Parts: sequence; C-alpha cells; structure tokens
Amino acid sequence: MKRTVFFISDGTGITAETLGLSLLTQFESIEFDRITLPYIDTIEKAKQVLVQIGEASKTDGHRSIIIDTVVNREIRQILRSCEGFTIDIFSTFVSPLEQELGTESSYSVGKSHSIEDNNRYPLRIAAVNFALENDDGGFNCDYENADIILIGVSRSGKTPTCLYLALQFGIKAANYPMTDDDLEEFQLPKLLREHKHKLFGLTTDPSRLASIRQERRPDSRYSSPHQCQLEVREVEGIFRRFNVPFLDTTDLSIEEISSRILAAKGIQRRT
Amino acid sequence: MKRTVFFISDGTGITAETLGLSLLTQFESIEFDRITLPYIDTIEKAKQVLVQIGEASKTDGHRSIIIDTVVNREIRQILRSCEGFTIDIFSTFVSPLEQELGTESSYSVGKSHSIEDNNRYPLRIAAVNFALENDDGGFNCDYENADIILIGVSRSGKTPTCLYLALQFGIKAANYPMTDDDLEEFQLPKLLREHKHKLFGLTTDPSRLASIRQERRPDSRYSSPHQCQLEVREVEGIFRRFNVPFLDTTDLSIEEISSRILAAKGIQRRT
Repeated sequence: MKRTVFFISDGTGITAETLGLSLLTQFESIEFDRITLPYIDTIEKAKQVLVQIGEASKTDGHRSIIIDTVVNREIRQILRSCEGFTIDIFSTFVSPLEQELGTESSYSVGKSHSIEDNNRYPLRIAAVNFALENDDGGFNCDYENADIILIGVSRSGKTPTCLYLALQFGIKAANYPMTDDDLEEFQLPKLLREHKHKLFGLTTDPSRLASIRQERRPDSRYSSPHQCQLEVREVEGIFRRFNVPFLDTTDLSIEEISSRILAAKGIQRRT
Repeated sequence: MKRTVFFISDGTGITAETLGLSLLTQFESIEFDRITLPYIDTIEKAKQVLVQIGEASKTDGHRSIIIDTVVNREIRQILRSCEGFTIDIFSTFVSPLEQELGTESSYSVGKSHSIEDNNRYPLRIAAVNFALENDDGGFNCDYENADIILIGVSRSGKTPTCLYLALQFGIKAANYPMTDDDLEEFQLPKLLREHKHKLFGLTTDPSRLASIRQERRPDSRYSSPHQCQLEVREVEGIFRRFNVPFLDTTDLSIEEISSRILAAKGIQRRT
C-alpha cells in the first residue's frame, strides 16, 4: 500500500516537513511518497495544489495525506476542500495557545525560518563561518572562542557534525583530527590541552571507518582495516586516559550526534 | 509578560523545537524563554523535568508552555501531571493518522532524525562532502555531478546556502565566486558555460555586502562601498544578460534562500 503525503506551507515548508516526517516514522508498514510544496501563497497556486492532490489520490487508489502549516486563512480554506486527509498544524494548536496566552495570534505568514524570526540568526551564520575556519586543526585555530572542540580520527564525522551544530543550533564548534603523531604519543595534542574542558571525542566502528575511507583513498594504508582498528583503539584509549567524554557515531545521524553532544556537555542550543 | 517554553522529547527534540518555534512566531507580543530538553527517556529524568517546570512557572508567575513529542507512554503520562500548559504533538496527530491509515503506530522512540529514519541519510552526508569539496570554484570542481551551482560575488551567501541545501535537503550544491575577471569580461565563467541550466545566482544589497566584507578585511578595496556597488551591479547584469535566475538574499535566512532556490529550479528535496 502506497500513500502520497503532501507537506504544504505558505512559507519554506520546513516545519510541515519536519513534523510530518516525524509522524510518518511511526508507521513503518506503509510506503509513503513525499512531496513538499513550499510557498503556496496565492489562490492560484492553492488551486493547482488541489488538482495535484486529486491526481495523486486517484493514482494511489487512496486519498492523500496533507500535512500543512499554511497561515493564510483564505488559502487554508481552499486546501480544506481537497480530497485528502488533512492535518492542519496551525489551526490545531494556535487556538488553544491564543486562549492560554490571552492574546491573538498575528497570523503572519512566513515568520518561522525567517531572519526576523529571531535575533539569533547572525549567530548561526557566524557559527557556520567559525566551523569552516576552524575545521581540521592547526595553529591558527581560534579554540579560545569555540563552544566545543570535536576530536577524533579522520572520517569519524567531525566536520558534518560541526556544520550541523552551527547551522541548526548556532554553536561554534571547532574540530581537530588526531594525527598519527598524537596517537603514537598517547597524549592529548599540545594545542588542545588548555581547552580540555571543551573537548568532545567522536569514535566509530573500525570496519565502518575502513569502508568510508576506502571511498576516499581506495586500497591505501589509510583505509586498511588494520590501520582503522589501530587508530580507533588508540584514540579511544586517549579519550579514556584523559577523561574526554566521547560518543560512538556508528549508528547515529548528525542530528543525534549533535543533540547528544550538547546534552552531554550541558550546552543550550541557540535556536 | 514572560513565559517559559519547554521543548521536550525522548529523542533529539528537533521536531518539538521546530514546530514549537514556528508556533511562537505567531505571538510576537510575548517574551518567551526557550528551553530544549532532549533525551528525556527515563522516569527519573521525567520527574526532574517536572521539578524544573514547577520552578519556571513559579519564577514567571505564569504556568509554563510544554511542547513535546515524547513517544513513550509512561514518560508522557508523568509529563502530563506537570503544572504547565501542554501541547502534545504525537497524541494529537497519531490517533487520527492511525485511523486514517488503518494501522497502529509503532510507538518507537527516536525514529525521526535517526539513520534508520530514511535510506536517504547517506545521500545527505555525501552532499555535505560534495559541498565542501566544490566550494569556491576551481578547475577540479565536479560540476558534472552537481544538482545546482550557485554563483555570485564573494560573501553573497553561497557557502552557507550550499551547506544547508546538503544537510537539510540532501542536494549536491557547488558554488562559484565570480572573480573580478569574470565581472570585467561581462561573461559567464568559461568553466560554467556548459552547465548553464544548473546555475542560480545570489545577489545582495551593496551596503549590506560592504558591512559583511568590512568584518573580514576592514578598510580594504574589497570591502569599500564603491567596490561592492560595482560588483553587485556587474553580477546582476550578467545574471540578466544570460538569463540566470537569481535571488536577492539581503532579507532572507538560509532556510528561505534554500527553499526558494529549490522551488524556482523545480528540484525536489531529498528528505
């Protein structure tokens, strides 16, 4: 059984998509075809959406699921007339919130995920630049201003995690790849010692590491199972020796790695 | 009036946070103190949360707002006994969805934002690596495999947008900074001509550009208002001359820039 799911918004569609995808994970037995329709902000576009929903429902032999965060009342009304099963996120929650807060909602479209949405936006961009400038170690790195410094062997997931921490949470994350020298000395890198409280280690399953490295430099010492096993054992030894908190990223997504790091370090998100 | 809002989850908390922040943007007159509590996955932790909610409500003189996506029933029940005003995202929508889909929800915790959540996860990581490797132009760039190529003058927002497109949507985005030579020749860069259909231009207000550049290289030719004005005029001229679709990013967030680019190019998100 296949069902088409439409995430519809008069803004970016990111909220509808995020909540919608979360809900769908609870129904593993069903195959969903997912379509995001952002910026449905005119009556014309809304009417086209109705047609698209009708066609999908007909093709599937089941009515489509509509998950929407449309704020504009007129457009919402048009969408309500569709043949799908609708989950109307704003209507459901805005009224109770209005009552609780004792004030009317502004019904302003596209406020979420906008620059105005929060004054912390420039912090996020600054954090992205920070992550790019402080990626991959080195003497010029600004560890002083880092919120956190990720350490681990090459390809253990440091860079994508730093970028996610910056983009999603506005956290300034530097990273330092542990070199062969660092591992052999069985010490924390000199540059990092005075920032020990900011360190967080990433580790991963050696065979997974080998297959990731294999894509980079096939059949090299770098990607050999033996080398990966050795590096992982050494780096975990260093984490334990110096009480650096660490996480095995093998089965975790960047979202999970990032969320767990912040939770473990007690750092609040700047969202 | 200040109200404390808790985003609570037994997973990463990203869904609760995303939906919650969207809802709060509809109430501009109220000052919200936002606290995210991820991984509330034991009874012990849930009981600590109750205490924290009680304290916040007391300090504020108003009960707190709780926006949660807790899946575990036992933990949800504990949270229900709090003194706050609760928006229970899963309960609200899962039952109607169960009925519509004719199947029970799996009540599995932490599925969303996990690796298992979708088989497209490796695509996102590959896209992040692609963005990092194809940042800033050059002969070695893999324009062949790009879904999109962003062009614009230095500091017009290309790199953060490419990273967001990769991390959030799994889109392979390269970027190419238009050089002085490109601008003077009033041509599309040679390297990009055969990929014209993938090009998308970013532009920005010259005075905003000057202030961003000023932070990088203070009082340089690069950051002078005159130079910025010139570059922006030239690059927009090139976009128009060669019919490259483009967007003024001055008042837009990365989420908006990314969503608008994909909508304009008709590229579906790989979420």
